Amino acid sequence: MALTAPRTPPGVLELLPLDQIAFQDMLDTIRRGFERFAFLPVETPVMELTEVLLTKEGGETERQVYFLQSTGSLEKGGPPELALRFDLTVPLARYVAEHEHQLNFPFRRYQMQRVYRGERHQRGRFREFYQCDIDVIGKDALSIRYDAELPAVIYQVFRDLKIGPFTIQLNNRKLLRGFFENLGQADAQKQALILREIDKLDKVGADKVAESLRGGDFGLNDAAIAQILHFVQIRSSGHDDALARLDSLGQGSEAFNQGIAELREVLQLIRALGVPEAFYALNLSIARGLDYYTGTVYETHLVDHPGIGSICSGGRYENLAAHYTKSHLPGVGISIGASRLYWQLREAGLMGTGRSTVQVLVTQMDEAELPRYLAIANELRQAGINTEVVLEPGKLARQFKYAEKAGIAFAIVVGSDEIAKDTVVVKDLRRREQFEVARAELVRALRVELEQAQAMG
Amino acid sequence: MALTAPRTPPGVLELLPLDQIAFQDMLDTIRRGFERFAFLPVETPVMELTEVLLTKEGGETERQVYFLQSTGSLEKGGPPELALRFDLTVPLARYVAEHEHQLNFPFRRYQMQRVYRGERHQRGRFREFYQCDIDVIGKDALSIRYDAELPAVIYQVFRDLKIGPFTIQLNNRKLLRGFFENLGQADAQKQALILREIDKLDKVGADKVAESLRGGDFGLNDAAIAQILHFVQIRSSGHDDALARLDSLGQGSEAFNQGIAELREVLQLIRALGVPEAFYALNLSIARGLDYYTGTVYETHLVDHPGIGSICSGGRYENLAAHYTKSHLPGVGISIGASRLYWQLREAGLMGTGRSTVQVLVTQMDEAELPRYLAIANELRQAGINTEVVLEPGKLARQFKYAEKAGIAFAIVVGSDEIAKDTVVVKDLRRREQFEVARAELVRALRVELEQAQAMG
Repeated sequence: MALTAPRTPPGVLELLPLDQIAFQDMLDTIRRGFERFAFLPVETPVMELTEVLLTKEGGETERQVYFLQSTGSLEKGGPPELALRFDLTVPLARYVAEHEHQLNFPFRRYQMQRVYRGERHQRGRFREFYQCDIDVIGKDALSIRYDAELPAVIYQVFRDLKIGPFTIQLNNRKLLRGFFENLGQADAQKQALILREIDKLDKVGADKVAESLRGGDFGLNDAAIAQILHFVQIRSSGHDDALARLDSLGQGSEAFNQGIAELREVLQLIRALGVPEAFYALNLSIARGLDYYTGTVYETHLVDHPGIGSICSGGRYENLAAHYTKSHLPGVGISIGASRLYWQLREAGLMGTGRSTVQVLVTQMDEAELPRYLAIANELRQAGINTEVVLEPGKLARQFKYAEKAGIAFAIVVGSDEIAKDTVVVKDLRRREQFEVARAELVRALRVELEQAQAMG
Repeated sequence: MALTAPRTPPGVLELLPLDQIAFQDMLDTIRRGFERFAFLPVETPVMELTEVLLTKEGGETERQVYFLQSTGSLEKGGPPELALRFDLTVPLARYVAEHEHQLNFPFRRYQMQRVYRGERHQRGRFREFYQCDIDVIGKDALSIRYDAELPAVIYQVFRDLKIGPFTIQLNNRKLLRGFFENLGQADAQKQALILREIDKLDKVGADKVAESLRGGDFGLNDAAIAQILHFVQIRSSGHDDALARLDSLGQGSEAFNQGIAELREVLQLIRALGVPEAFYALNLSIARGLDYYTGTVYETHLVDHPGIGSICSGGRYENLAAHYTKSHLPGVGISIGASRLYWQLREAGLMGTGRSTVQVLVTQMDEAELPRYLAIANELRQAGINTEVVLEPGKLARQFKYAEKAGIAFAIVVGSDEIAKDTVVVKDLRRREQFEVARAELVRALRVELEQAQAMG
């Protein structure tokens, strides 16, 4: 038979089992953090009706959509009725609008699923990737206090992921808007273009950015440029410093003053929620999606790996589902791009392969004793220990080698000596030690060993 | 703005949060069972290259495939390069062939992901649904002993799911083939057609089936028909009865004898693995996918709900990935159709909504004390308790109502009295009781309450 080359499509992240375990551990930690803060799980279908998914006309996002057609509909022709979600926000909007009367508000949902973008393939950019989102959706109104709760979730999740120090950076779109209004730049479009130039600050330096802003497209004067460059480079260190920097901004337009007041309240509540001050800071350059966010905006950066960029971003928006319902549904949310994060952490050497989920291998010293080995495996499993048992006969040395290669920490060995004494030998394959226990003591002894191995990481 | 009706495509299962929790609990239980038996996690991309996915020409399955096209490739025209997986077996074959040299054999993988079929929409048939699969893949050979391990996993998983008594039914394709050979029906195609008739036994009765087999297509004589009907109605009850029924089959072709020998060994090892005999039985009518399985085949039925059909099926196959590699990779596997199972259990009243993952609501009696409430919430979360805190001010009665509606079992109330005494009131919203504890004792007291609530189910 002619063989087909077995290969995945480009732009996907497919993992070997021990890597999959590491990735799964990461997802489990994120999920645990979300649940700790009382977010409820939602899953939506991978496909949405095209008319529901693509309510906005054209745009860059639509170019990246994957459309779906069954064999039948391909033959019939006509535009595709179904498409894959490209984020979790549009499905959330559709979900909340569709099930509005069955949900409790404020509605706190988490969603951890894959999304799809038909991007040109580049290293580290994926066409299929996990997003882990939380949002709080209010009906008619939603207190600014929720804007403070999300950084507390971010703190919990990334602390638990143990990937080093990080900073949750805060800004407020009202403050940004007010700042530009104070400068006489009230046009939102133009503000967006200026912010796009400012985004290049780290890459090209202040002089180049100043030059662009002075140029034909913008025509800003030197005083305005200086004010902008000063403003967007404001970063706080510590809680009191953050408040002092807000104070030093003075007064301005209504939006400006409201932005400052909101940031102040959010900062105070973040502290009240127990987030240590080393983990949050003002960064007045953060803008995020200009056409979507309207208040608080967040980014999260690893202190020791600034090159990775923001690992968790989001913000406050005015109305979630205007395309689907007349209800006014303000919300605030954040998103972790888990596939990309995992890949970046692995590239940076911060993420190793996982420890095998298999805890014990029951070896087969004597094929005639297989029922005994199966009974031991059964007992361990009933005690909650993940256990593999060697079913094919073979040399013990080869069985140990298999366990080591597979990352299994402990092997159980029972031969005629042990049977005579009613004991079991437990081999610690990492520390290359072994000990003998009474058969009846096996579960208890193994539990102690597994706890110690767990604690030692 | 013109509104778009927010609706899901037909044929998908989208759940409200408390139902999603119940479904997630089900998936978690299945996953825990798979891991207990040392199966390793694998996830594959939802899309495969069309040429990889559709190696077999045409066929019914292909008619149901969803093809994927990005905006760009739609415009270019030409056949779609990508398609959604329709099961987890083809992706497993591709995965094992692609990563063959990085895997340990026997390779034990579990995979719990959604699959896609462009079926005509019917009640309870889904176009998107979860499958939960385990397979053991050998290199060159795989001992029959693995065929006995899978029923032990099925037993563990369905016992833990607590959905009532069930029977794992076993047959062997070699036995079936040998039986038909003994009758002079050696043609595999014809055997398949006879078995398809026999599949109607429960629906149309033995007389109708006999009539068909006597008819033009088959032309079997009465003696052969009687033998067939006798054979396929063989069911065992209890371990010894199963062995006795195998003995009573006598001798036949090589395949026939081998089938009996394999079933006997599998039965013995299932018992050695601790599966109680009430949970497994012979059912010599089971055939499953005729062109795929070659040895042991399984179905699993709920004793009290025969109408639901098999809730977990699978079997032994000769070679997993002949389309992709010259390596000979025999395997044995089972699959649980989790979305359909969940839906059926819910329809049968065996599956309620889940208990909320939120364990405690910290209420807001006095807005001025918000920092205190946030500190309590923080303390509970750090103690591992899933906690929501009321952030918007409102009447206490409304806060309790919210908690009840959301299925949150406990509420914390702290007013000026409690602050003065340094205590906290814990309200059990189900039992409509409350008690007061010292502030410092809150975590300990709540843990006791939550454990009791857990134990009471």
